[in-house]
Amino acid sequence: MVGTQRVAWHARWVLPVVSAPIAHGAVVVQGDRIVWVGTSDQAVADVHERLGHCVLMPGLVNAHAHLELTTLRGFLEGLEFGQWLRTLTEIRARVLSAQDIIDSARLGVSEALLAGITTIADCTASGASLDAMNEAGIRGRVYLETFGPDRSQVAQSMSDLRAGVQALRARANTLVSVGVSPHAPYTVSDALFAAVAEYAAAEQLLVASHVAESTAEVRYVRDGSGPFAERLAARGIAVKGTGESPMALLDRTGLLNERLLCVHAVHASADDLSRVASSGAAIVHCPISNAKLGQGIAPLINMREAGIAVGLGTDSVASNDRMDIIGEARQAVLLQSLQRQTPDALAASDALELATLGGARALRYELLGALAAGYQADLCAFRIDALEAVPVYDPAVLLVHVLGSGRAAALTMVGGRVLVRDGAELNADSGVRDRVGMAAEKVKQFVT
Amino acid sequence: MVGTQRVAWHARWVLPVVSAPIAHGAVVVQGDRIVWVGTSDQAVADVHERLGHCVLMPGLVNAHAHLELTTLRGFLEGLEFGQWLRTLTEIRARVLSAQDIIDSARLGVSEALLAGITTIADCTASGASLDAMNEAGIRGRVYLETFGPDRSQVAQSMSDLRAGVQALRARANTLVSVGVSPHAPYTVSDALFAAVAEYAAAEQLLVASHVAESTAEVRYVRDGSGPFAERLAARGIAVKGTGESPMALLDRTGLLNERLLCVHAVHASADDLSRVASSGAAIVHCPISNAKLGQGIAPLINMREAGIAVGLGTDSVASNDRMDIIGEARQAVLLQSLQRQTPDALAASDALELATLGGARALRYELLGALAAGYQADLCAFRIDALEAVPVYDPAVLLVHVLGSGRAAALTMVGGRVLVRDGAELNADSGVRDRVGMAAEKVKQFVT
Repeated sequence: MVGTQRVAWHARWVLPVVSAPIAHGAVVVQGDRIVWVGTSDQAVADVHERLGHCVLMPGLVNAHAHLELTTLRGFLEGLEFGQWLRTLTEIRARVLSAQDIIDSARLGVSEALLAGITTIADCTASGASLDAMNEAGIRGRVYLETFGPDRSQVAQSMSDLRAGVQALRARANTLVSVGVSPHAPYTVSDALFAAVAEYAAAEQLLVASHVAESTAEVRYVRDGSGPFAERLAARGIAVKGTGESPMALLDRTGLLNERLLCVHAVHASADDLSRVASSGAAIVHCPISNAKLGQGIAPLINMREAGIAVGLGTDSVASNDRMDIIGEARQAVLLQSLQRQTPDALAASDALELATLGGARALRYELLGALAAGYQADLCAFRIDALEAVPVYDPAVLLVHVLGSGRAAALTMVGGRVLVRDGAELNADSGVRDRVGMAAEKVKQFVT
Repeated sequence: MVGTQRVAWHARWVLPVVSAPIAHGAVVVQGDRIVWVGTSDQAVADVHERLGHCVLMPGLVNAHAHLELTTLRGFLEGLEFGQWLRTLTEIRARVLSAQDIIDSARLGVSEALLAGITTIADCTASGASLDAMNEAGIRGRVYLETFGPDRSQVAQSMSDLRAGVQALRARANTLVSVGVSPHAPYTVSDALFAAVAEYAAAEQLLVASHVAESTAEVRYVRDGSGPFAERLAARGIAVKGTGESPMALLDRTGLLNERLLCVHAVHASADDLSRVASSGAAIVHCPISNAKLGQGIAPLINMREAGIAVGLGTDSVASNDRMDIIGEARQAVLLQSLQRQTPDALAASDALELATLGGARALRYELLGALAAGYQADLCAFRIDALEAVPVYDPAVLLVHVLGSGRAAALTMVGGRVLVRDGAELNADSGVRDRVGMAAEKVKQFVT
């Protein structure tokens, strides 16, 4: 339960994100809100909790995940993207039971909390992630996926989607909301995109779609050629290029608006980014997934300069293989430095903003992602007493580049509730780990 | 002391690097050598040490570091390369005392051992790293640096270098050897390169040189233009381009031979790599430093295909900011996937080979970097009981991509001596950390 006492959380460093780092700082929480942020010696509260040699900051936002794939972490190494997608789809459908899939999502949620993640935006085929998130008390949104590259599938896809959304909304708690996700331009027909856009507008649903992830996708949309087109042709589905970019396709079908979260946007041109900016849509940047799958480096700095709300995402651990937003922040800096051929492309403090406030804005949360009075009491803290955390010139650099990872959080708090303390999840289901291990044994046998 | 008993080290996974992973494996050590590798149930020994749920593997090789810069970790963020180099050179000369510099190196060695690194190749201006390495019992080599872009400096530089090498050789123990490092084409005249090459051949010294790190360096050597040329011109030193690549310059001056370790080689052309391969020289790849400084992605796969011995290096933590060879291995995979636009550019097992045997070969060690009878007993082990280490399909993927870091080693052993156990350095000097903290306070004041 979230109490009504005022609790001051003290730490060696407090990083509010919306204001300068505070040495020896404190955050006072009452109920589910932050009521005060400042230096430790000035904190007034009923209870004082001293985290010690830690960095205390807003909870991390993972703006793109596929929690139900956690069990496939490390299994799909080195596969070409189309084969990767087909293999995991087949395993999800034929090998893993409904129980396996919810356990997979549960393990992912626990991993997130232990890494200081307090909000997850999850794309889900089954909806299982909603239940896993509900149980754990994490904040977030599940976008129910729909697929259908053939125009003839639209009615069925929409009927399934409506029923699925209704079922999920009935199960959602106050911290988890429901959206929809037409998967990607190479798995969704123009007609289905348009139908989802109309439905989302009518139902006031937020939308997420993978877009401009690969050159293969760009070729498919523009020219009707390449590996995606070949596979659809083999299934008897006619494909013709429209001469447009994937982002222009979303625009034409009515999806590109302020409700949309564009996932990846690696191959977004200047024109594409102008469309996104003027539409009010947001973007989630997944640097490690994009690198590991060989997709490319997204134009992150251009996105920010265009005024687009941008967050960071891990994508599924089947392509990543870590649920670690601090790691994504570091990778974002490294890849932008490479792309811009300069060491000052993106400051560590900017990367932390992407990891918190940027993600919150991209997901359309208000009063989330920063430490300030009135904001949601979503916090995380990381210990900085390892040998390598000496010396400290800048706590943002320490967190992003020296620690470089958010594992084993000292504290994870969502809406005023402490979910992780000293690297342990307080309400963990200890059986999940073993059950995921058993599911993995089935996965291994699927191939051999 | 290294005993003569046979000690079997058991672990959930053993990764010999030169042979397939062993589930439930053991490594038997006697004195400073490995005498047997196999499955746990067949291990014969006087003493059995059970590491439990760990990956046990050859000690990691950090084939390029600057230990004496550890105190500057995180201080030089975002600086342009020339300014970065000038600032650190000035701080090293004017702010840090000799005691500060050896403490800086000591902290770096401790960090290395805690990250499972058992061999370091260090480029040092002061030679302090040799003493720090001696004290800690780590294996490695210190390359004493020489600088001098002006021809008139050759005699003085060589006289200083000879004296420095003699002094270091007198202090070196059996685990640490001495080499020389003409710093880089933009800080060393052709004449000094030639003089070092002659000296190294006469004295049988191994050599390390930064080469082809940046496009600025390529322009300087080829065209005599760009930021390096401008700064030398401002100091009254005449510069003219020779039309050749930095690697060709090293070749012409006699340095490119089997004694040379080329550091970085980011901008090495196919012709450059042919020269390296036929010369028998080796390369150390520092992917994170190259990315963070905006230098580029080195042609790692081409290097391997050319048959060149390649290892991984962290470079100094002033540019990185971590001493973490598992992290470099992961970054090598990510960047090669990006460069090749494919998810299967470099397998995790190949990256682990670079991190161990590749580094050992690049540094000209024999019987180092793998687990097999007769090899040096340099080992490291990492715990794999964190939540995210479930499930395990491939222990190399687990280590490189899921853990993604080698912090807090369960075991670090050099030449049969246990130096780290359960994340703690056994003979650590507990005062170093505080002294580095105090040195950092002086560094902060230097600028403000």
